[in-house]
Amino acid sequence: MPNFFSSTQINEIISSLPLADDKTQTNAAARQAQLTKPTGSLGRLESVAIWMAGWQRRERPSIDHGQCIVFAGNHGVVKQGISPFPAEVTAQMVANFKAGGAAINQLCELADLKLDVIPLDLEHPTNDLSLGPAMTEDEVIVAMNIGADALDAECDYLIVGEMGIGNTTSAAALCLGRFGADAADWAGPGTGLDDKGVKRKADVIKAALAKQAPIDRNPVALLAAVGGRELAAIAGAVLAARVRSIPVMLDGYTSTAAASALTANGHLAALDHTMISHMSAEPGHRQLAVALDKQPLMDLQMRLGEASGAALASLLVRAACATHNGMATFAEAGVSGG
Amino acid sequence: MPNFFSSTQINEIISSLPLADDKTQTNAAARQAQLTKPTGSLGRLESVAIWMAGWQRRERPSIDHGQCIVFAGNHGVVKQGISPFPAEVTAQMVANFKAGGAAINQLCELADLKLDVIPLDLEHPTNDLSLGPAMTEDEVIVAMNIGADALDAECDYLIVGEMGIGNTTSAAALCLGRFGADAADWAGPGTGLDDKGVKRKADVIKAALAKQAPIDRNPVALLAAVGGRELAAIAGAVLAARVRSIPVMLDGYTSTAAASALTANGHLAALDHTMISHMSAEPGHRQLAVALDKQPLMDLQMRLGEASGAALASLLVRAACATHNGMATFAEAGVSGG
Repeated sequence: MPNFFSSTQINEIISSLPLADDKTQTNAAARQAQLTKPTGSLGRLESVAIWMAGWQRRERPSIDHGQCIVFAGNHGVVKQGISPFPAEVTAQMVANFKAGGAAINQLCELADLKLDVIPLDLEHPTNDLSLGPAMTEDEVIVAMNIGADALDAECDYLIVGEMGIGNTTSAAALCLGRFGADAADWAGPGTGLDDKGVKRKADVIKAALAKQAPIDRNPVALLAAVGGRELAAIAGAVLAARVRSIPVMLDGYTSTAAASALTANGHLAALDHTMISHMSAEPGHRQLAVALDKQPLMDLQMRLGEASGAALASLLVRAACATHNGMATFAEAGVSGG
Repeated sequence: MPNFFSSTQINEIISSLPLADDKTQTNAAARQAQLTKPTGSLGRLESVAIWMAGWQRRERPSIDHGQCIVFAGNHGVVKQGISPFPAEVTAQMVANFKAGGAAINQLCELADLKLDVIPLDLEHPTNDLSLGPAMTEDEVIVAMNIGADALDAECDYLIVGEMGIGNTTSAAALCLGRFGADAADWAGPGTGLDDKGVKRKADVIKAALAKQAPIDRNPVALLAAVGGRELAAIAGAVLAARVRSIPVMLDGYTSTAAASALTANGHLAALDHTMISHMSAEPGHRQLAVALDKQPLMDLQMRLGEASGAALASLLVRAACATHNGMATFAEAGVSGG
């Protein structure tokens, strides 16, 4: 993966992204229609298999080197009292990931995904986005390159997640900056704010966007204004995956918001290689999924982050590939068609 | 498992069923609150882990001997033109299961579940339920015993599924007989009926219930009137699992309808040891889930049967157990609480 050098170059990459392979998708869909089941009866497993085939560019898709990358960052905006957890929990949880004690460790083991944990300059939180830009554009580009470089050479399926006390505030600000609507629609309890805290969070992001307006409609400008290092790294990883035609499973609200920065110029197609794994219990996620025209695969009222929902959904992706590749056709099994 | 001998004895068993272990559930819930995540942030995975703990009666639940049993039967009501597939497909699909070519084979392999396929007297379809009782009560009891006997001695987690051309008609009739409402609310396209076919199906079950009324409010009477051998076997397996305190994951519309026969006397608690894996695309399933006061874990628009949705949901059960058992507590990981 060549480095991303500038905001302009990133915009150029986004304007000429590879598409899914049409012919492979058509052939995969034709195979689905021949398998021993009523047409369409595997529901979304069928569309997941076809999506995997189109992006992996092989008619029998599979996860041979599935990779989970969790990026961690700290946020100056925590000074505004928008999280019930102290900022040091970010580094403590990174240590927990490395020791194998977090949810994502158990889920990656179950789903047979390689887990990489990448802390980004935790001792230097971003600036408080309510007072001015969270980062410089150069800092965003450095973080996006860290994200892009984190993909293994052999990666054929990617999930991304995050850890960062305060980052649902940054995610909500990204959504407000990208999609508009009311600040209150994007601000939620995060790790456990009460109603008063949620209102404070909405006020903080509303003030941030008002102070920093107008923000250029491009990914780097948006991430610099209200993003975070781990969110920029997610955007970089998702973009690098697209350049390599690797399907990506997004996690919950914060990861989806980070990826949505890639659509800052208005083109939702930049995320065609992604699915949303689950509908987060964080209320803004529903509106975000609608804005991105995506239907999450599951709704288990999860709101943990760490790529936990994406790891779970990877089990469904494995099921989609296993049925697609392993089932007999009507002809092979001698079963009468409907 | 002792045999079920009579309708009366089955009613007696149902009136004195074991409950989940309260203390184990309380301890499992307390453990969830100590794990390194915001309280409740694993959503339904947390309640699944606690449910498993309560029924397996161990604070660290797990699937050590997960069993999937698919029962197959044929239905005289196919003469009424209520399926686009010919009846011989039931036996053909049983052969496909045994050869490893069906969806459920791939899904059980992925979820590490032992698969047993049990055809019930396929060459002798039940009587046409639109003309009179589908079976005698003795035939129901034989089938229920086959279901109960199919559980392995070491089974600690069960999923059940079915294969039977015409059996969504039987399922819809069971629902109409058990819960009332309109026949049209319970009749759906099944494997692929058009609107006219769905209307014919609704008329068939309405006529069947009208002709056979009144039906005694007990499982055996209901299954004899409008059930099928594979549906009675599912009811028997689900009841045997309850007697042994084994958690059960139900599949889609037909399996859930079969299990709901166990509540024929009005007591929904007979299914407290079960969860519904997924919301089937068969429209009656939503109303059935509401009637049973259960929220399916997933909604992937699947409508295949064969226990396919239950096998998928077993991956989530494994994830629930893995996070419950494998995660570090706040104290163990040295992470500051919220």
